[in-house]
Amino acid sequence: MKVIAVSHGSFSKGLVESVQMLVGEQENLVAYGLYPEQTVASLTEKLEEEIKKTPKGEEILFLTDLFHGSPFNAVVSLMKDHDFYHVTGINIPLAVEVMMGRYADKTAAQICEGLLEAAPDTIKYVNQLFEEESEEDEE
Amino acid sequence: MKVIAVSHGSFSKGLVESVQMLVGEQENLVAYGLYPEQTVASLTEKLEEEIKKTPKGEEILFLTDLFHGSPFNAVVSLMKDHDFYHVTGINIPLAVEVMMGRYADKTAAQICEGLLEAAPDTIKYVNQLFEEESEEDEE
Repeated sequence: MKVIAVSHGSFSKGLVESVQMLVGEQENLVAYGLYPEQTVASLTEKLEEEIKKTPKGEEILFLTDLFHGSPFNAVVSLMKDHDFYHVTGINIPLAVEVMMGRYADKTAAQICEGLLEAAPDTIKYVNQLFEEESEEDEE
Repeated sequence: MKVIAVSHGSFSKGLVESVQMLVGEQENLVAYGLYPEQTVASLTEKLEEEIKKTPKGEEILFLTDLFHGSPFNAVVSLMKDHDFYHVTGINIPLAVEVMMGRYADKTAAQICEGLLEAAPDTIKYVNQLFEEESEEDEE
């Protein structure tokens, strides 16, 4: 399975770098950014090239930064002509989940369903969490 | 309110860059990364300096990449001696929310509660979403 992170600017590049600090160097994990000097059309073209050079039968999972953002829309525009999976709103814990799922030979569909389930629990308001914990300790 | 993004590697730097592409250049928004050649203690020291140079009375919100990761733990270790807010598992939509909330003069506590509420809806499995939409259209 190939994983393609796409975002405004360098977020996707940072995501890919940081994930590899956590789980080790990864193959088939690439990042594309949309930069101010660049058109959405030229990003879309590059993404389509990346899809086309993926061996037939290998699944593709796109991870984008923001629902309805330009990088998201570029990926969505490719969903008409190409078969792939797409999750938006990616963060580090979910990107790690993707890598672990791929390592465990899960299918892209299984991974995406897992991400959706895991998502709410990956974001925590730490002060509130610690307050709840200390209240529990007092009980 | 000062916002400090902290992560493994360049994720936080990419986050800060990409958010500014979306909402324009921001003051009081900084990024720190933990890199392989660096100790957690040296990161913690830098973060404490950043806290100490913040004017008294100005709220501070830390945004970290991963629950129980080393950057998260560095920030948590500072919560004993310093008053600040901390949300972990940050993604682009939530970072944008932080900037909008600050612009609207919300307090850090209000912003953090808002993030927790908004969080699940910021992550979407796009294929499934489009399937549901097309099923609704057919009904």
